[in-house]
Amino acid sequence: VAQRLEKFKTTIFTQMSILGNKHGAINLGQGFPNFDGPEFVKEAAIQAIKDGKNQYARAFGAPELNSAVASRFHQDTGLVVDPEREVTVTCGCTEAIAAAMLGLINPGDEVILFAPFYDSYEATLSMAGAKVKCITLRPPGFDIPLDELKAAVTSETRAILMNTPHNPTGKMFTREELEAIASLCIENDVIVFSDEVYDKLDFEMDHICIASLPGMYERTVTMNSLGKTFSLTGWKIGWAVAPAHLTWGIRQAHSYLTFATSTPMQAAAVAALEAPESYYTELKRDYSEKKEILVKGLKEVGFEVFPSSGTYFVVVDHTPFGFGDDVAFCEYLIKEVGVVAIPTSVFYLNPEDGKNLVRFAFCKDEETLRSAIERMKLKL
Amino acid sequence: VAQRLEKFKTTIFTQMSILGNKHGAINLGQGFPNFDGPEFVKEAAIQAIKDGKNQYARAFGAPELNSAVASRFHQDTGLVVDPEREVTVTCGCTEAIAAAMLGLINPGDEVILFAPFYDSYEATLSMAGAKVKCITLRPPGFDIPLDELKAAVTSETRAILMNTPHNPTGKMFTREELEAIASLCIENDVIVFSDEVYDKLDFEMDHICIASLPGMYERTVTMNSLGKTFSLTGWKIGWAVAPAHLTWGIRQAHSYLTFATSTPMQAAAVAALEAPESYYTELKRDYSEKKEILVKGLKEVGFEVFPSSGTYFVVVDHTPFGFGDDVAFCEYLIKEVGVVAIPTSVFYLNPEDGKNLVRFAFCKDEETLRSAIERMKLKL
Ligand SMILES: CSCCC(=O)C(=O)O
Ligand SMILES: CSCCC(=O)C(=O)O
Repeated sequence: VAQRLEKFKTTIFTQMSILGNKHGAINLGQGFPNFDGPEFVKEAAIQAIKDGKNQYARAFGAPELNSAVASRFHQDTGLVVDPEREVTVTCGCTEAIAAAMLGLINPGDEVILFAPFYDSYEATLSMAGAKVKCITLRPPGFDIPLDELKAAVTSETRAILMNTPHNPTGKMFTREELEAIASLCIENDVIVFSDEVYDKLDFEMDHICIASLPGMYERTVTMNSLGKTFSLTGWKIGWAVAPAHLTWGIRQAHSYLTFATSTPMQAAAVAALEAPESYYTELKRDYSEKKEILVKGLKEVGFEVFPSSGTYFVVVDHTPFGFGDDVAFCEYLIKEVGVVAIPTSVFYLNPEDGKNLVRFAFCKDEETLRSAIERMKLKL
Repeated sequence: VAQRLEKFKTTIFTQMSILGNKHGAINLGQGFPNFDGPEFVKEAAIQAIKDGKNQYARAFGAPELNSAVASRFHQDTGLVVDPEREVTVTCGCTEAIAAAMLGLINPGDEVILFAPFYDSYEATLSMAGAKVKCITLRPPGFDIPLDELKAAVTSETRAILMNTPHNPTGKMFTREELEAIASLCIENDVIVFSDEVYDKLDFEMDHICIASLPGMYERTVTMNSLGKTFSLTGWKIGWAVAPAHLTWGIRQAHSYLTFATSTPMQAAAVAALEAPESYYTELKRDYSEKKEILVKGLKEVGFEVFPSSGTYFVVVDHTPFGFGDDVAFCEYLIKEVGVVAIPTSVFYLNPEDGKNLVRFAFCKDEETLRSAIERMKLKL
């Protein structure tokens, strides 16, 4: 294995899902729904396959999808972007992240990251040869320590890589926090990579896209995807919206990482993005109910549950159960209790910081959530 | 844009397809069929979507697809590989190439490439920071200059990146050439990356997978895909077969480049790989007819046509028409004649080497091929 990837292990999602399957555990680990995506989107994919939309899409996205992404971005942020020059369709948001890092970050460039972070951030920054500086968000609120951030951003800083609503914690960056990030970026000529795949799962406050703050669009790459919002995580349609000068680098990397993504799925993504507002309202109502069930249950089991404002995740402190660390706890949970959760220590530069915390996902049907809680009540 | 991608332009396939569309030209440029893939494969994808196979696949491939790839590899080469530890499913062969380079090549590692080469090879080697040494294959036969190769491979060499049947030339590496490569690799402890996406389009001789030569499997990454063989280039299902110690690096890079590829398309790929031998026989018979039409036509137009043993491409010398270089010729061909071909100079480290050559694709229905030839006869 090349040095750039030496320190990384099999992704924790893969590890836990495999171990969970082996033990017949209920999977509240990896973030995928155990129910299906909407019929109208599935129908659109089927129609595209039947209609023979089965050859290479345009590398940076089927024209109709680039347009649909631009109009949704406009609806969400008020910003007008050029679908032909400012949108790139990728193989899931994961590829958008990789393409942004490899396309825009040079070896030695300093990039600021908030821990805990989705594991691909650190791995793709390592592929790009970035120098990573890490700001840790701490429970219970996982708020940004603004003084630390201010001290960290200097003229040496090339970029900030952020994620709101935030995986794994469910923290949503507030307007104050976003404005503080924005002013630091403008002052120090820093660009922002913002992973906003959970933007439609904003329960406690309205999601704010950092690109929509004054002076920010020109320095921001906003990344999103179909999978979370439309419960089709296996379709792997993502995108990056960014001004043309940043889009150029992303497209160059994307062209040579995957060239293009699935054509019939792109056609279906167009149909998805044309969904009426009511689709999102219902999605959020459904998820609110699931969240309530899980949070209430986890409290009854005896965890300290930290408030989650967005995403379909909640983070808890497992120390009441007396395990040394999060990985040991999750292994016990899978093998002896029959429930999969995700240990968070892999989301920190310093694994110690996450050793008390584990993440549960509530993107599951109610019965699954209730059975998992039942098992934990019985056996923990 | 990051330095690693600075020298690369928009891929030539994208450039030419866009220019061709603008001028209503017949596209014999980018290698995608203008007919549809087989019904039984499309049906399998539709069934998978209906059956709710729409969430994340296992990162390194749906178990059934890893098994199907392993059995096809066994049928093709006689080698027995472990689907769980030696197969990785990727977003097209393009991602397999990127993952192999980023997962296995360190900055400064020397990699040998044969020019002309598919453009992503040079770009992904640049992303990996490799030192590239290039061996040029020259017309008419595009044979490997074995003395040059022998001189090039030293103890400094980490890998050889090869492609047979060869895009753009249609050259197939002979047993003698493959044995020479193999013995140099074994002698100098060199690994091989072999892109064999056109393996089933082997017209003039039987394709030989270099991994099947004695002592080679343990040092070879064999890459292939669904797109070419099943006329579904837009589905983006590829794979890499390699011994476990090399597969590890590929999987690590893949996990963070895309994580996984489309789940319903993976289910359909299983159906495709279970196709009876007769599917391949017919495919080859159809393509032989198309090839004959194109080659005969290009000769009648007045090109010097170089022999193509495999792939769905032929390369010609355009100098009889008095254009300075291949790009100027292709622009004239699109704008004034109404036919898209691919200039080959971008496939060389030194563009001068390709300036007399252009590539035509014959993965088009007969009428399209005949109309393109008609246009060239009239207007060239
Ligand atoms: C790409 S696998 C991980 C899915 C996910 O976003 C998560 O579980 O955090
Ligand atoms: C991925 S676009 C290029 C398709 C192809 O393989 C070719 O035309 O050479």
